[in-house]
Amino acid sequence: MSFKLTILGSGAAVPTLNRSVTSQYLNFNERRILIDCGEGTQMQLRKFRVKFQRLQFLLISHLHGDHYLGIFGLLASMNLTGRTSKLTIVSPPGLKELVELQFKTSKVYLAYEIEFITIESKTKELVFEDKVLKIFAFPMKHRVPTYGYSFEEQSKRPNVDKEMIKEYALTTLEIQQALRGENIEKDGEIISPNQVLLPPAKPLKFVHCSDSLYKEALVEWISDADLLYHEATFLEKEKDRAKATMHSTAADAAKIAQKSKAKKLLIGHFSARYKNTDKLLEEAQEIFPNVVCVEDGDEYLI
Amino acid sequence: MSFKLTILGSGAAVPTLNRSVTSQYLNFNERRILIDCGEGTQMQLRKFRVKFQRLQFLLISHLHGDHYLGIFGLLASMNLTGRTSKLTIVSPPGLKELVELQFKTSKVYLAYEIEFITIESKTKELVFEDKVLKIFAFPMKHRVPTYGYSFEEQSKRPNVDKEMIKEYALTTLEIQQALRGENIEKDGEIISPNQVLLPPAKPLKFVHCSDSLYKEALVEWISDADLLYHEATFLEKEKDRAKATMHSTAADAAKIAQKSKAKKLLIGHFSARYKNTDKLLEEAQEIFPNVVCVEDGDEYLI
Repeated sequence: MSFKLTILGSGAAVPTLNRSVTSQYLNFNERRILIDCGEGTQMQLRKFRVKFQRLQFLLISHLHGDHYLGIFGLLASMNLTGRTSKLTIVSPPGLKELVELQFKTSKVYLAYEIEFITIESKTKELVFEDKVLKIFAFPMKHRVPTYGYSFEEQSKRPNVDKEMIKEYALTTLEIQQALRGENIEKDGEIISPNQVLLPPAKPLKFVHCSDSLYKEALVEWISDADLLYHEATFLEKEKDRAKATMHSTAADAAKIAQKSKAKKLLIGHFSARYKNTDKLLEEAQEIFPNVVCVEDGDEYLI
Repeated sequence: MSFKLTILGSGAAVPTLNRSVTSQYLNFNERRILIDCGEGTQMQLRKFRVKFQRLQFLLISHLHGDHYLGIFGLLASMNLTGRTSKLTIVSPPGLKELVELQFKTSKVYLAYEIEFITIESKTKELVFEDKVLKIFAFPMKHRVPTYGYSFEEQSKRPNVDKEMIKEYALTTLEIQQALRGENIEKDGEIISPNQVLLPPAKPLKFVHCSDSLYKEALVEWISDADLLYHEATFLEKEKDRAKATMHSTAADAAKIAQKSKAKKLLIGHFSARYKNTDKLLEEAQEIFPNVVCVEDGDEYLI
């Protein structure tokens, strides 16, 4: 198992000198995933030494400029620097048309395949699965269709209980039988798998909650995340502005983390009005202690 | 008269850590103009302390991503930070449709007016004029419709020849008569304006030649520029690549400067393959000595 999350851009709407607009790079069991791709993401990838040719997935939360405008330049640069492998892009409706019009106008012909997966689901939905990872999308509550993403490790196989193996003197073939869920007949005795196996480790779960008003339904969809990112554009004292623009406060993000029993919370997408994150951190910590305000270039490991 | 050119991005196609993609900011007699707007231009404007709300013109040379993809984020940021004054955007066909689809998808409604001027001319054409400045567009030779821009100061009025004024003992009213081009009757003598006036100073001229193969016709359109910017993506030894991608070499740019009698040449849009500009400079200087390789953040005054 490997897990590394790199914050490429932690700002909201208008980029500042310290915070690029939203993008995060995720390496989850060697699946290389870009979550959102605001303007300048290709430069941030270079700056933080992420090889963009190895990206397999590009997940876009919603089609507000600060979350997707970097996609055209990134796709073109991938092409110019020799990409041939397929890229899968997941987004709400409309992105394929934007990409196609852009490239038609610029007369860009990609040498690699893009698979567009469009999500329109009203509930949590599986969008990708392989032997190590499942990716789910679920709807947020924003001014345009917006999705959160949950990255969930596939269930692990049970661990072998070494003491019991020794006690029953099981052979390698018999252990494999137990791991397949089959009973073992040994010296006239029936040994069931749960007598010689320990419960598997809990699969790893990372959840990315992009722009949204506080949404109670999230709690069910994102429960027990090892790491939860949730936007926190404003402080509670800017609640009116948060409601008008359909964003969360630091307290909102903390409530979601608390109710969904997250282990750790990352907050970001801070309005440029906040010169530092002290008050945002303080507000969130009052509700959920294990919280971090992300900065461009931060890396989080599990 | 005031003139300042700021290089916001000096690279080609794929941005590097040292060179952003193309954009230049021009303050010409207090007319504030952005020439090209590659991805990340709004960040470069901040970095080099140019107030983007004061921009009046946005001129796009052509619709390859490295020359225009920053426009959507810049227009949105102008809106979010309170712009109400009109912006004029000049470009080849297609940009208006891209901007409109982008904002329709993002549900962005601008609080300021954009005037789109679309250029399709096959020769040098006036696209804007006021009392201090004329802007002309002229076609380059590239893979998509591409335009160069010439910024020309309006003709100045003649200078008064102080010695002759003294000799003829002209009054203020009589001097004004001469400046209007009228003959003066003085003590029975007819004095023509050219007897008491000196020829006006040459109007200032800055020319921006974006992506193009070597194009001889430019020489006539851009003659006698005080400052000429011409792209120089490659060295002569990459001539084949230059032809295939329809770009110029440093020698091509220098030939255009020499034949058009420019006073000073700036070259840029260097391919990321060149780690430094020594050879590009050397190649150009052999043909046209007064040449500079531009860097992000450079400022040029006249």
